[in-house]
Amino acid sequence: MDNFDEATRTLATSVLEHCRALGWKAATAESCTGGLIAGALTEIAGSSDVVDRGFVTYSNEAKMQMLGVPSETLAAHGAVSEQTARAMALGALANSEATVTVAVTGVAGPGGGSTEKPVGLVHFAAATPDGVIAEHRIFAGDRGAVRHQTVLHALEMMLSRAEEAH
Amino acid sequence: MDNFDEATRTLATSVLEHCRALGWKAATAESCTGGLIAGALTEIAGSSDVVDRGFVTYSNEAKMQMLGVPSETLAAHGAVSEQTARAMALGALANSEATVTVAVTGVAGPGGGSTEKPVGLVHFAAATPDGVIAEHRIFAGDRGAVRHQTVLHALEMMLSRAEEAH
Repeated sequence: MDNFDEATRTLATSVLEHCRALGWKAATAESCTGGLIAGALTEIAGSSDVVDRGFVTYSNEAKMQMLGVPSETLAAHGAVSEQTARAMALGALANSEATVTVAVTGVAGPGGGSTEKPVGLVHFAAATPDGVIAEHRIFAGDRGAVRHQTVLHALEMMLSRAEEAH
Repeated sequence: MDNFDEATRTLATSVLEHCRALGWKAATAESCTGGLIAGALTEIAGSSDVVDRGFVTYSNEAKMQMLGVPSETLAAHGAVSEQTARAMALGALANSEATVTVAVTGVAGPGGGSTEKPVGLVHFAAATPDGVIAEHRIFAGDRGAVRHQTVLHALEMMLSRAEEAH
């Protein structure tokens, strides 16, 4: 049986192939997806030569303790912010064996939304030793749909970083 | 949309309800499931008052660095062993805000199996401040099926620990 759909598995396979060709290890830093990005990568047989680890930093304490996200960043910008996503991606790079990391933090819903930060808003960051790139999206749909689209976009960002490096 | 089937979501909901009633936080330490246990718990809306964090310790380095699994344990018994599972669960308890943790390490396949440790063998451990309980299973099916059954059994072990405490 498959725990992920075809699109996710195809994308995860591409990320692994590109990282493998570069000799890169990968790590994830996940808030709203709660482990699904690492779960998608490890669904593919042979992923252990690329996937180093994942940080599921659901609470703010976890973001600070596991990834070194500054409490000032969380206080000033909130957990769902570009600044926090960047700090998570860089923290994952600093606290792992990985050459590429991706971080996600968003409002999966159905609660927790606001005018400024609606349900579906997700901040992403992907880091390599060359630097960190941040993006955000506002996804439609229910909690499951927001998380699913977040997994896909996070994998796309990892793939882009690997493609740039070839 | 749903990223997990009905059985998984029902079980995850029960784990969250029991933990919430006890004022417990939860954490996971995952090798072969690669984040799916944390992913299942966080699929449920409102899980943030229970789920603290997850450690996706796919590599041996991650098991040592994130969870403090002794290198001697890995060398003597291997990553897929009762001893490693126990050390992972206790390491998750020591390195989080959680009152209950579950750890899994197994051979998801299709490669990596041996006579002594066949594909489908998964060691589990669930820890609370009262102690750690270990179990193992040999699951049938392909990689996805082994991982899916591992998620379900891990959630059942967390639920049992919470039920005992009521």
